[in-house]
Formats: sequence, structure tokens, C-alpha cells
Amino acid sequence: MVGGEEVRNKQVIFRDYVSGFPKESDMYITTDKTLHLKVPEASNGVLVKNLYLSSDPYMRLRMQKHGVDLDGFLASYTPGSVLSGYGVCKVVDSGHPDFKRGELVWGITGWEEYTLITSPEALFKIQHTDVPLSYYAGLLGMPGLTAYVGFYEICTPKKGEKVFVSAASGAVGQVVGQFAKLMGCYIVGSAGSKEKVDLLKNKFGFDDAFNYKEEHDLDAALKRYFPEGIDIYFENVGGKMLDAVLLNMKIHGRIAMCGMISQYNNIHEPEGVTNLIYLIYNRVRMQGFEVFDYYHLYSKFLETVLPYIRERKITYVEDITEGLESGPAALVGLFSGLNIGKRVVVVARE
Amino acid sequence: MVGGEEVRNKQVIFRDYVSGFPKESDMYITTDKTLHLKVPEASNGVLVKNLYLSSDPYMRLRMQKHGVDLDGFLASYTPGSVLSGYGVCKVVDSGHPDFKRGELVWGITGWEEYTLITSPEALFKIQHTDVPLSYYAGLLGMPGLTAYVGFYEICTPKKGEKVFVSAASGAVGQVVGQFAKLMGCYIVGSAGSKEKVDLLKNKFGFDDAFNYKEEHDLDAALKRYFPEGIDIYFENVGGKMLDAVLLNMKIHGRIAMCGMISQYNNIHEPEGVTNLIYLIYNRVRMQGFEVFDYYHLYSKFLETVLPYIRERKITYVEDITEGLESGPAALVGLFSGLNIGKRVVVVARE
Repeated sequence: MVGGEEVRNKQVIFRDYVSGFPKESDMYITTDKTLHLKVPEASNGVLVKNLYLSSDPYMRLRMQKHGVDLDGFLASYTPGSVLSGYGVCKVVDSGHPDFKRGELVWGITGWEEYTLITSPEALFKIQHTDVPLSYYAGLLGMPGLTAYVGFYEICTPKKGEKVFVSAASGAVGQVVGQFAKLMGCYIVGSAGSKEKVDLLKNKFGFDDAFNYKEEHDLDAALKRYFPEGIDIYFENVGGKMLDAVLLNMKIHGRIAMCGMISQYNNIHEPEGVTNLIYLIYNRVRMQGFEVFDYYHLYSKFLETVLPYIRERKITYVEDITEGLESGPAALVGLFSGLNIGKRVVVVARE
Repeated sequence: MVGGEEVRNKQVIFRDYVSGFPKESDMYITTDKTLHLKVPEASNGVLVKNLYLSSDPYMRLRMQKHGVDLDGFLASYTPGSVLSGYGVCKVVDSGHPDFKRGELVWGITGWEEYTLITSPEALFKIQHTDVPLSYYAGLLGMPGLTAYVGFYEICTPKKGEKVFVSAASGAVGQVVGQFAKLMGCYIVGSAGSKEKVDLLKNKFGFDDAFNYKEEHDLDAALKRYFPEGIDIYFENVGGKMLDAVLLNMKIHGRIAMCGMISQYNNIHEPEGVTNLIYLIYNRVRMQGFEVFDYYHLYSKFLETVLPYIRERKITYVEDITEGLESGPAALVGLFSGLNIGKRVVVVARE
């Protein structure tokens, strides 16, 4: 006997491997499946109702067949199966002693209304709800922790240093910029529209910002904002921007390699980066990182960031889209920069 | 009054900026200049007789006009002036209280018979002469310290790790390989001829080695020697080799960026490196370094390496050319891989 109310489970299905820019039609919505709102007997999984889904650039990497073995976090989606990603969820039923019905969690879940999470140990419990719940899909979730780890742990910033972040109004970039200001750094960001540049300067307190699409010569643009060079580069885009940054790093500079959104859609023919020799000239450390190597820092991160939020020293701009049906467009739009701030798909508010 | 015997000073003169591969005719020998073997009055410089000159790949970088400001160590040579580089020298006359006539030193000097060194503070005194004096232009000089710093400080090796070094029979590579063996690592090197590969395997004790010129697919070659991936890559060549290595780094691997000899002759149109995203996938640290940031480690380095030499646990292969006249050919030959081991130009033996 299964038990539990039976419901139709609306889902976003990944149709097939993608090459080039993803399209909405690479996914489709279905309500074909039904589900009992109960964890199967003998399972120690957790059945969750998905509330907020995080639409993230790295998901593009999972939409292709990889030529090499990668860690599970980047494993290709299975054609015909439900999409997955980070989300904020409510426990509906639990077969695991650490989780109880009604508790809020965030972690990897399905792009669907309800998900049976079979390894709930990887979920984070949400204990502070005096801040917007959707923040756990952004500022207080994976993207915020990514910014924290990348900036403080990888970039080892010092007061007064010159910091540059690309994709600066995005889910991670806006947080990096505000951390840099709080640290007493000079921070400049690049983004892809006037509206985003305004946001950086007026909402997030960046010292300056520019629209990379309006710069024919990225090297010249960087020299304008960093006449003495860049101490820290927080890399979200790759390609031409990285090449220009390499020409402008200061001696003993650090580059945190967080993402390369400009390259995700031409992963089989990426742009060549030609200025790596400047890593030697200027003795620069360039370091790739993945947030899940630093999950043990999550509580320290919360202790740092929650007070900043409560004291309004950190703000966060979300780009909320309503309904699971909006998911495919929300994801695809990231790659043409349609999002203003952190893109979150609301499946349900409670 | 100047004082001191007057001698003709044979010199290697840098003719003009180079593009592409350097040629012997980019330099010329002259004996036009004469010199008094005495430090000018009121100078605190040191007049040295040059004994062994180190012919190093990085010197190619100084043979061109740079588009950007670089630290002094890479400042362009001045057309019409004497070439300079690392060398082993004997003090002939001193205006500096720390240096005495007859003492042996190593450091930056001119490619000429005698040099007035105006900033002798940058020289290292040679105190151990039970080893070949020419070693202070190689194993016990800049290249050896480079290997030491790059391997131990930048790569942070652990016993049992898998290490790959390119240009492995060169001045730095052969030392890196022997350090890796002494550390209990598995070490594979690449070089450009069968003779060099034999040297790596039979003289320096590399676990394996291959001739990169015989490999059509460097990625496949690396997978053959490192089926489980590479923990540490000591980078001396850049370009295609780096791109192939990036596909084969293990999680949390480290890349010490020491040099990029494959790119020095096409510095204005370097090959694009396309696989940098693997730094993120595998959370790899790639770090450029320059040996002079670590000069403070020189005595620690000597304490480590001198016993190894005396106990014959480290060996060093030199490619000695005789006479200052051989200098231009010795330098140019590096870029077609003509040297077997560390290339040293003997100006005088005492």
C-alpha cells in the first residue's frame, strides 16, 4: 500500500542534448505523471513540494553530452527526464529521521511540483525565515555561498584592493560586488545593458560599472577603470573578457574562476585565450573552484550574511518568473542576458 | 685617474628587436670597447670577470619591444647594447664593502668578458666550491631555484601524486623531475627528441617520458601515461601542450606556470588555449611565478640540494659551449631544442 493523496505532478522535461544556444523547445512541460504524496515504504528519502527554483547558467553544461567524465554535479541531464537544479522546498513527507513534514530546505531538486529526494543528507535546512524565502535560491543559497567562497577564500582580498567582476548584476556577481565594498575594496563590474549598469552603480554601490557590449576594446575599457591594474578578478564569463583581464592584472593578482557563461554555448569550439603568459609576467594565481567543495562553510557564511541583510548592508535583486511553465524561458533567457538579477522560478509560495 | 690594467672587453651586442625566431645575426661580437680593471672612484659597484653565462629561454622575451610595462627582469634589451643574463663571475675589483677581490658570485651580469655591476646587492655569493662552479649557472643558480620554488612552493606536492613536466630535460625540468622522484611522486616528462627521452628515463630516473614531436594527439599521449589524471603539471612550454594537460588534470590539481617556450617566438600571435573551463570543472589552481620573488629561500634551497648533489641523489646534465663567441648560437639553439640539458656558455674557467 502506497498511501498519501495522489496528485498530478507538473514537470519540466529535458527533451534532448543541446548544441549551441538552448531553446525553450529543448524542454517541455508535462502533467502526465501522477504521484502519491508519501515517501515509499523502506525509503529514507524525503518528498518535497518545490517552492522556488534557481535558474542557473551552469545548467547549460548539463544539457550536453560530455566528452569526459565529470563529477556528478555536472553530469548530463537524461533526455526524456525531469530537469534538476537548486531549489527551495517544503518537506511533505519524510522517511529520514533528520527531516520532518513542514520543514523548509534548499538543495538539488527537480524542476517539477513535487520531488522525491533520495539523498536528503545533501539538503540544507532553512532555519531563518525573517528574510525572503526565495533568498535561499540565491543570496542565501548556492549563488551567495559561491560569491562568499570565491571572494573570501579564493581571492584572499585585502582592504583597498582593486576588484573586477564580470556578469556583475547576476546571481553571484551582485553579491561579490557588495562583499568587495564591505571589505573596503574598489569594485567595478561589467554587465550587458544600461539598466544593469545603473543597478550596479546605484543599487549595489559599485564604484563604477560598464556595459561590455558598448566597448569595442575591452583592454582599453579595463585600463580606463583600472589605470593601475586589477588585484582581483572574479570570473563569470570567460573568452574575450578573460583575455583582456589577463593584460591588466597587477603583480600577485588573483583570479577566481567561477564560471564562463560566454563559452557554455560553444563548448565544443571555445574561444582561445591567448594572454596566459601574463600569469607568469605578473605572478598571478588563477583558480577554478566549485561551491560544493566549501559546503562546510555554510553556517559561517550565514553568520556573516544574515546580519548584513537585516542591517540592509547587503541587498539582492531577484528576477522572479511565475509558474513552473515559465521555467524553460527563464533558463534560456539567461544566455541572452534577459534576466535582471537572480532569476528564480516560483512554483509555489508555500 | 682611473687606474687598473686596461683590457679589450669582448662583448655580445644585441643588434635590434626580434620578431619570430631569433637568429644568430640578431647579435654580434665586438671587441671595440676597452675597460680599466678597476671600479670607478665613488662607485660602490663591483667589477667582475664573467666565467659561466646561463643561456635561458626567457631571454627571448627581452629581445622584443613589449606592448606593456613589465617588471625590470623582463625589460627589453637596448639595441646596440650588451646582452645580459644570469652568470657566474669572479670579483676583480670592488667598491662595495660586502664584496672582495677574488670572491665568486652569481647573478645578473653582461654577456661580455668583464662587467661593472652597479647594484651588487642583488648578487649571490658562492661559498661552496666542492661542486662544479658552472652549477651556479644552472642547478645551484636561477634554474635550480626555479625548479625548487615551482615544485615545492607552488605545486605543494604530496607523496604518490602524479606529476608531469614539459621541456623536461631542460635546465629546470630535469631538476623538477628529480625532486618529484625524491618526493615519492610518479613523474613523466616530455621532450623533443629520442636522445632527451632516453636521458629522462635512464639518467634522471623519470618513471616515463615521451617525445612530443612524435605524438599527433597530445591528449591521447597524456591519457596513456596518466590514465587516472595529473595532480601536478610543471608548465614550461604553453600552447597545445597546456591545452591537452587541462583536459587531464585531476580534481584539485595544481599547475605551476614557469615558462611558455613554445610561445616566445610568436608572442604577438600566441596560440589560443581553449580548455580553461576544465580549471573550473576540476577545481585546479594555475599559478604563474617568478623565481626572484623567492630569493629569500635560496639558503634553504642550498641546504636541501647540496647534500643531494654530494650524495649523488641529484645529477645535472649541462650542455657547455666554449667561448663568448659561441653565445649567440647557444641562445638561438634553445628555440629549436638543440641543447641537451642546461646550456652554459664558458667565457673563462677562472
